[in-house]
Amino acid sequence: MPAPRLIALDWGTSSLRAYLLGDGGAVLQERAEPWGVMHTPDGDFARAFGAMVGAWRREWPRLPALAGGMIGSAQGWREVPYVRCPAGAEALSAGLAAVDAGDGTSMQIVPGVLEDGAIPNVMRGEETQIIGAMEIDPSLRQRAHVVLPGTHSKWVDVREGEITSFTTYMTGELFAVLREHSILGRPARGTAASSPAWPAFERGVDAVRASGAAGVSGLFFSARTLVLTNRLRAEESLDYLSGLLIGEELRCALGEEVGREPLVLVGDRVLCQRYQRALALFGMENVSAIDNASIAGLWRIAVTAGLIDEATSATEGLR
Amino acid sequence: MPAPRLIALDWGTSSLRAYLLGDGGAVLQERAEPWGVMHTPDGDFARAFGAMVGAWRREWPRLPALAGGMIGSAQGWREVPYVRCPAGAEALSAGLAAVDAGDGTSMQIVPGVLEDGAIPNVMRGEETQIIGAMEIDPSLRQRAHVVLPGTHSKWVDVREGEITSFTTYMTGELFAVLREHSILGRPARGTAASSPAWPAFERGVDAVRASGAAGVSGLFFSARTLVLTNRLRAEESLDYLSGLLIGEELRCALGEEVGREPLVLVGDRVLCQRYQRALALFGMENVSAIDNASIAGLWRIAVTAGLIDEATSATEGLR
Repeated sequence: MPAPRLIALDWGTSSLRAYLLGDGGAVLQERAEPWGVMHTPDGDFARAFGAMVGAWRREWPRLPALAGGMIGSAQGWREVPYVRCPAGAEALSAGLAAVDAGDGTSMQIVPGVLEDGAIPNVMRGEETQIIGAMEIDPSLRQRAHVVLPGTHSKWVDVREGEITSFTTYMTGELFAVLREHSILGRPARGTAASSPAWPAFERGVDAVRASGAAGVSGLFFSARTLVLTNRLRAEESLDYLSGLLIGEELRCALGEEVGREPLVLVGDRVLCQRYQRALALFGMENVSAIDNASIAGLWRIAVTAGLIDEATSATEGLR
Repeated sequence: MPAPRLIALDWGTSSLRAYLLGDGGAVLQERAEPWGVMHTPDGDFARAFGAMVGAWRREWPRLPALAGGMIGSAQGWREVPYVRCPAGAEALSAGLAAVDAGDGTSMQIVPGVLEDGAIPNVMRGEETQIIGAMEIDPSLRQRAHVVLPGTHSKWVDVREGEITSFTTYMTGELFAVLREHSILGRPARGTAASSPAWPAFERGVDAVRASGAAGVSGLFFSARTLVLTNRLRAEESLDYLSGLLIGEELRCALGEEVGREPLVLVGDRVLCQRYQRALALFGMENVSAIDNASIAGLWRIAVTAGLIDEATSATEGLR
């Protein structure tokens, strides 16, 4: 195995992933546990850290460790102050904060980003994915819209390698609470989960797209009434609802900006596929998607912060 | 006490109200229990009916009984088929269905209304309130928008005394699930409920109004970030969220139709007050509100169906 250079941790709300990275950010080993910030056993982050990466640290004691995500929130190990827009790898590196791992070593945490203003926005974890996406596709650095679908989807403007502004759409959380707790989830309760019913999904997207300025609010109830009137099968109703919600996100976010700038999806492959289908209905075919961007982002931030020496790594990477 | 003419029941999802009505629909006595369709003890509707109005029926055995609301749904006592738009008092009367009260008497149930189409809409209970609103304010009969705020708000077009079309906004249910189950409810959890924080509410309404075609989707998260950045007090955040949701309902529903036709609110006085404040921010001052419209609606439907003789009642009412 090539020499390890960095322990990188993607420590979010629901899961913890750890990567042993070699030169150039190549993944040498990886581990995952469902120990997200809200699910860390006993809320003992130091112990979870030890259980996750202790073996690596014992074998390579001087290896730096860098984590991104909700582990830097008020609910995490240490609340790391947000850095403000515009923010790129430099600002994020300057904002790193360390926690004591309890074994004489420490772990650095990437700060989140705040866009202040009348409608403030915050992110934690996405900033690292965005830095990573620019590593993977350097053409995004100059000017791009980066879309990170999820519980709290982010639509992020990138200019000259920096996050300049962004908006949050609570699409994933809305879907989850409506599925679990509203009348709209009732028809599909008890039906087996299966592969996406794409026609039902696309029907939802199209209904919102066709609504123009009105949007989804007057359409939610149709996820129930279409089932009541036998025009939608109960087991398809959640895909229809997913289409309504993702369609609404696109309707709002694209607004008049469609086609002006390169748009790229960053995130989970399966979720990005849903967005790609929805974007196609809005006339944007073949939008590319980047998965696993956190790893490249953590590498870039570690290099920028001087935790590791890129020059050495680059040279070694060429050997 | 004047002679009773009708037992009228407003039997919804969460509550059951019963009225002993005299000539002209005057309320002689009333009772209320939290025995809505989802909370009827043991789901035994006949027993709840007996406990609620049995004494009246024993004293006046030939009194007809008429109920409106979710009691006519699949989850109620008997599923009464929807009548289709356009629907007025005649169509609703023709659609009444009886249930056996078990004591040798029966109760009639008002049907709901279905607007069929690509985006179907249904109501149960609101149709009775609309008929009642037209009794209370006959000027609405010719042409009006009737707005019934609630769990599933309805915006209803009325023409010549009939419901011709309507849209559902799940404003109340969205508020409830976001407050109870989403991250947006978290700041205010544990804070005491108090009188509405009107400035926070109006700030939410205004944020949506100012968003133009984009709407609320990109604004939800601000109910959290404004608290995070100390621009909104945690205990005001739910009123801000209420403003966002009611603002979105108005933004969508009013669209380009503002001011074209008389608009009236029908429903709970406190909730209507919230809508009146929001409507004022959309430039519609002094929109009137009608409470307790169900009673007048049940009376009108009972008369139209021949359950009671209006001629007699009208004469008696003039004495």
